[in-house]
Amino acid sequence: MKDKVLELINSKKILELKDYIEKCNEKDISILLEELESEHMLLVFRLLTKDNAAAVFSEMSHDLQETLIRALNDKELKDVLDELYTDDTVDMIEEMPANVVKRILDTIPPDERKIINEFLSYPEDSAGSIMTNEFIDLKADITVKQALQKIKNEGMNKETIYTCYVLDKTRRLIGLVSIRDLILSEPDLFIRDIMNENIIKCHTLEDQENVARKLQKYNFLAIPIVDNENRLVGIVTFDDAIKVLQEENTEDFSKMAAVMPSENSYFKTSVLKHAKNRILWLLFLMVSAIVTGTVISRYEQAFEALPILVSFIPLLMGTGGNCGSQASTLIIRGLAVDEIKPKDIFKAIFKEFRVALVVGFCLASIMAIGIFVIYKDIKLSIIVGCSLIFTVILSKILGCTLPMLAKKLKLDPAIMAAPLITTIVDTCSVLIYFNIATFMLHLG
Amino acid sequence: MKDKVLELINSKKILELKDYIEKCNEKDISILLEELESEHMLLVFRLLTKDNAAAVFSEMSHDLQETLIRALNDKELKDVLDELYTDDTVDMIEEMPANVVKRILDTIPPDERKIINEFLSYPEDSAGSIMTNEFIDLKADITVKQALQKIKNEGMNKETIYTCYVLDKTRRLIGLVSIRDLILSEPDLFIRDIMNENIIKCHTLEDQENVARKLQKYNFLAIPIVDNENRLVGIVTFDDAIKVLQEENTEDFSKMAAVMPSENSYFKTSVLKHAKNRILWLLFLMVSAIVTGTVISRYEQAFEALPILVSFIPLLMGTGGNCGSQASTLIIRGLAVDEIKPKDIFKAIFKEFRVALVVGFCLASIMAIGIFVIYKDIKLSIIVGCSLIFTVILSKILGCTLPMLAKKLKLDPAIMAAPLITTIVDTCSVLIYFNIATFMLHLG
Repeated sequence: MKDKVLELINSKKILELKDYIEKCNEKDISILLEELESEHMLLVFRLLTKDNAAAVFSEMSHDLQETLIRALNDKELKDVLDELYTDDTVDMIEEMPANVVKRILDTIPPDERKIINEFLSYPEDSAGSIMTNEFIDLKADITVKQALQKIKNEGMNKETIYTCYVLDKTRRLIGLVSIRDLILSEPDLFIRDIMNENIIKCHTLEDQENVARKLQKYNFLAIPIVDNENRLVGIVTFDDAIKVLQEENTEDFSKMAAVMPSENSYFKTSVLKHAKNRILWLLFLMVSAIVTGTVISRYEQAFEALPILVSFIPLLMGTGGNCGSQASTLIIRGLAVDEIKPKDIFKAIFKEFRVALVVGFCLASIMAIGIFVIYKDIKLSIIVGCSLIFTVILSKILGCTLPMLAKKLKLDPAIMAAPLITTIVDTCSVLIYFNIATFMLHLG
Repeated sequence: MKDKVLELINSKKILELKDYIEKCNEKDISILLEELESEHMLLVFRLLTKDNAAAVFSEMSHDLQETLIRALNDKELKDVLDELYTDDTVDMIEEMPANVVKRILDTIPPDERKIINEFLSYPEDSAGSIMTNEFIDLKADITVKQALQKIKNEGMNKETIYTCYVLDKTRRLIGLVSIRDLILSEPDLFIRDIMNENIIKCHTLEDQENVARKLQKYNFLAIPIVDNENRLVGIVTFDDAIKVLQEENTEDFSKMAAVMPSENSYFKTSVLKHAKNRILWLLFLMVSAIVTGTVISRYEQAFEALPILVSFIPLLMGTGGNCGSQASTLIIRGLAVDEIKPKDIFKAIFKEFRVALVVGFCLASIMAIGIFVIYKDIKLSIIVGCSLIFTVILSKILGCTLPMLAKKLKLDPAIMAAPLITTIVDTCSVLIYFNIATFMLHLG
């Protein structure tokens, strides 16, 4: 696509270019624009129809939007902003520097500006911050035919017309009608007779992740957002919900690797910001690892009696860490997708205990036999084997319990992931190992 | 909800119960049924209207579906299956034991059975395996009014009527029309004049993850699936796409914790299956850790000269492992959501190198100063400090390079995650540490 467009630009076939661009999907055009040089980008953008320009604009990265806003004249900017959906405008304004925001707000008509300022005031990550006010509202006492006519008159500017919201005189939400219901119903039925009164909705201040999960749970295209008085103030559409879920997943991945989540993508986050996001956890874990080191140095006696003991420390710590990570990851993910509930804590611990028994005995027997074959030292075999079993059991139980406890304490379970579990298990496994060794070697 | 229903059952207010249930959302009813005892479950299910019964049925877990199928009589089963969408039927059949499948297929009319058998033959995880054949197809030479009438006649049985597919005489896909376009267009326009010819589609054999990502990229409600001759054979709807994305995320979480992904949820996976999914990776990593142990035992000389050296091993290995996990997690996630492309490999390495410099120097200076204050041993300070810097740099670069290489080699980057990186970094960090120590202590 890029090659084709560049070829048309270079051979000055502008009309042909316009035709070609018009047939492309907005998302593809926005990806193309990101790759073009600034002057070509502007040329292609100006060839777009008014409708298309707004659709393409809303798909762009905030960086490119900023470049474009600075390059467009007032008339062009107004045309784009007029066609943009409220949630996209709000989303964009949140990311722009102050002088660009001023220019945007100056271009928007006063009544719309009021709505946008109101939307901007919702807390970050709340339902209010991702909703749009472009929806179709109907009265209960009109007919299906009248409703369809209203949609036809207004529908051009509404983000989704697939679900219509039935409001009473005080704009309280009393029912839902899908466009499917409207089309399939007799034209002279009243909305009141076909509307669905079992409304599933969210509050403006509800966490955006809850909103997205609810939308996903019920397979809705959009979910209504109401204020304290149950008045409909906006809707959140499924595409925004997918975006929220994706972001939440990315955040969980980060947290579970001891990285503070970043607002931006990997390459857009600066080196210093990356370092800052990672160093605090590293420092904390490093200092915690000193405990393990101190424990080891306390048992000097044991590894002076049997120096080969030292060489099994990485194996024990590694296996313990991996077992703990396995358990904690499965539990954290299960909690995140609601497959595991906090009340299941003992069920989960019992499950992990049984898994640990199986895994621990397998690993321990393989290792014990291997050691005996190589070193012909039955004591060493027993020390390493027993340590493995206890380490596996302990790490699986810790890996399962800590995230569940975090959830019960209303903390984010994702912080109880591999890095923290590994560090705790390291200390425990070394303690187990040297205690068994001291006992077996009749030291101490 | 459960309390209310139980109360109504116990006081035998069955009519009231029926009224109550009718007003509830299908998803909520299916959750309720999962929690009820078998006889109450059956009672409530039989109170549902035909339409509702199928909707509730498709939301249930496969276990409950199986229980229900065994409990229903032939007539009841037929009613449910008649109303079920093809993709839900196919999805269910795939999970049922052979005797239940036989009963289901016997109940379905022959022509539908043929379609279902065809759908069942698509490979697992392909677009074909998650698509449905319930969509509205239109001819290009009918008018908007005729199209709306056709939708009205057929629409009841179609999973989504929001996008209609324009087919030529050989059922090749030539255009798309959304219901929004139909409602907003003049009734006597021809479909050909309003249809969108820029079709984004998938092939039946395409990976379901690709299909879901494409749907997400373009914010579609449904995406058409075509065969080798570009004939439309089905559509994949957004709710199935969200499910696929969720499953893929869960799979990535598992793989990144060295657990083979499970088809079932945490509690539904048996203890032995859990152990099997975890033990192979553990065994491999445990054996790899022997290398680290061997390296340590080779440098006996060093820790005999300075026994305190041993106590910093966990700190170095831990920090190296955590740094590597941080880098690999961010890279793997970036690759998964397409924010990082394989061609960016050198850009990513350079970025990680700079982050590692910042992080490494900070951690090393804190540690070196701490050690000097406590042990008053400048050599030990330098040994640990330098080892930290090199370990951090090496682990960040490994953590970034290995997933990118895996992607280039068409392997799943998720296997190059924390557990493997940690094990490799362990060996490297110990090597770095003891080499620096040997050099500083003028041994060897």
